[in-house]
Amino acid sequence: MDCGTWERRLYDGEPYISGEQPDAEVLTKLNSNENPYPPSAAVLAAIAGFDGGQLRLYPRSDGGTLRAALADLHGVPRERVFVGNGSDEVLALAFRACFGGEGGILFPDITYSFYPVWCDFFGIGFETRPLDGAYRINADDYAGEKRGVVIANPNAPTGIGEGEGFIKKIMEASPGCVVIVDEAYADFSEYSAVPLVDRYPNLLVTRTFSKSRSLAGMRIGYAVGSPRTIEALKAAKDSFNSYPIDSVAIAAGVAALGDSGYYSDRIGELKQTRDLSVEKLSRLGFKVLPSQANFIMVSPPAGSAEGLFLHLREKRIFVRYFAGERLKDFLRITIGTPEQMDALISEAEGYVSGGRSAGT
Amino acid sequence: MDCGTWERRLYDGEPYISGEQPDAEVLTKLNSNENPYPPSAAVLAAIAGFDGGQLRLYPRSDGGTLRAALADLHGVPRERVFVGNGSDEVLALAFRACFGGEGGILFPDITYSFYPVWCDFFGIGFETRPLDGAYRINADDYAGEKRGVVIANPNAPTGIGEGEGFIKKIMEASPGCVVIVDEAYADFSEYSAVPLVDRYPNLLVTRTFSKSRSLAGMRIGYAVGSPRTIEALKAAKDSFNSYPIDSVAIAAGVAALGDSGYYSDRIGELKQTRDLSVEKLSRLGFKVLPSQANFIMVSPPAGSAEGLFLHLREKRIFVRYFAGERLKDFLRITIGTPEQMDALISEAEGYVSGGRSAGT
Repeated sequence: MDCGTWERRLYDGEPYISGEQPDAEVLTKLNSNENPYPPSAAVLAAIAGFDGGQLRLYPRSDGGTLRAALADLHGVPRERVFVGNGSDEVLALAFRACFGGEGGILFPDITYSFYPVWCDFFGIGFETRPLDGAYRINADDYAGEKRGVVIANPNAPTGIGEGEGFIKKIMEASPGCVVIVDEAYADFSEYSAVPLVDRYPNLLVTRTFSKSRSLAGMRIGYAVGSPRTIEALKAAKDSFNSYPIDSVAIAAGVAALGDSGYYSDRIGELKQTRDLSVEKLSRLGFKVLPSQANFIMVSPPAGSAEGLFLHLREKRIFVRYFAGERLKDFLRITIGTPEQMDALISEAEGYVSGGRSAGT
Repeated sequence: MDCGTWERRLYDGEPYISGEQPDAEVLTKLNSNENPYPPSAAVLAAIAGFDGGQLRLYPRSDGGTLRAALADLHGVPRERVFVGNGSDEVLALAFRACFGGEGGILFPDITYSFYPVWCDFFGIGFETRPLDGAYRINADDYAGEKRGVVIANPNAPTGIGEGEGFIKKIMEASPGCVVIVDEAYADFSEYSAVPLVDRYPNLLVTRTFSKSRSLAGMRIGYAVGSPRTIEALKAAKDSFNSYPIDSVAIAAGVAALGDSGYYSDRIGELKQTRDLSVEKLSRLGFKVLPSQANFIMVSPPAGSAEGLFLHLREKRIFVRYFAGERLKDFLRITIGTPEQMDALISEAEGYVSGGRSAGT
């Protein structure tokens, strides 16, 4: 049978590589920027008490009560909110909804590595602009852009966050193209661009419940923008999958929004652990990029980043190593509990002070 | 501010229109081919007893235990199974994974109306071939095809199912292109092409938990095919959204597969209700297409299909009406409980015997 023909047409794009999900119980999993704390008790109760009989029916296509709750949270009408299956799906659909046709888009050379993958998937051209020597995004590189811009703020995997001046500089100079600000980590920072959507109809801000709401396993993301960009997002969704978010996820998401006290306490603890970890690692001679996220980028003063990665792995501590020229001296470490960070820092200290594993 | 530029690039495809999801409690919702019975007790228990703490972690990207359970169900290795967010997402990704690049695809003129939408979304060319006078698919129209073929079996919205001879005829004559068989409704029919995936590496069969497993609200679909097509599907998924199916859905899906007795009983009841409804409506003079699905296509002997649609709606019974030349004389009615069908048939009888609402 001649199978050559159909095989030649199969998708051969380079997919996104997500953080390893080790099968065994690991001591410390700090490689996927997951939250070390569980979802709030209200979320657990919403799931345990969910009326499973209603699952025979399709969910609300637009996220229903969750969309309404998000509109309330941000003080905007529902027409400005779009709900999807994690911010990855929201971003993928936004790329298709806002960057189709001619032109292309612009993003930093070091940023969320899913951006070029979505471009490839949808046939969208792109160019990158290098971060500066301090690993920061240069707003001037994007100001005046006429095609399309995507900025992660805080940026990943650097963790560096920018403030209102930075975003406004780009928006004021770029009224002709859609600017997506990916705020997956903004709840751990001091700034969000969401209030600017009233002012700039070409601004689309995406967010996720995976990090600050401890719901990576539930798949909830959303976008806030102008009614026109949200309408295009909805049309893209309804041209791909009408019901991407299930009824249990909708209930869990609503419950999470109702429990803001629990989450702001956990975020506060996490930021404290982050700042303390930065302090300790700096004292050990590590170079640490200033983080406004739930992870830190660190470079060891001795040995190599890859060597430390392998050493930690041997000790059942999983972090993330990105090969590639500009990041090869760094490890990305998700902020865990104080105990997890102490274990990691103790192993890191052992490694840089010479107690390295053989061969690294 | 000049907004013209960015707005001109926004997605303007024609989205798929799903069945209405009325806000108020309705007497009888028979418009979206949902199952009238709730999920099994084991599914409800799996959700109620779900360990919500683990939701802080990402789910298994490939569906984990659900993929394994599906492989067991069909007696194939896991490499032949792909799990996604409802069969709509699985189909969308399969279109991108198997029909990219040059060429185009072929499907019937009357079939699931999402097919042309996905083509438009991904820039895939397509042609259609008309159903015959009895609303059946002519296998000869697809045999020998070199581009790509999509066949819903049973077909929607006709409900007509074909057997092994039909599928084999297409597969034997078309070794050069991927053939997708969309089996959303196959559990209500007498035939499934899944066992043929061993024989034809270019055959991809998609299925859903939304209909026969009463889990439309949980978003679970899957595909069975050759390791090569499944690998392409996985690459497409990982280029769009790494984690489309959440951890609760995985647990619920596994529980549903463990409760096959409950589901085969419900499917048996539903088929009985379907056959009885066909008999009663035929006796009233309705033309009814032979259905192997959980819905029937019926044409009233008096008045009009649209008139009957509006009459039922007034009585709080929702069914589906498709405008358009070849379907305008039909209504698609989802099979509900015996009580729901009796209510519908009684209203239908009143309508065709002259008790029509004003204006219809």
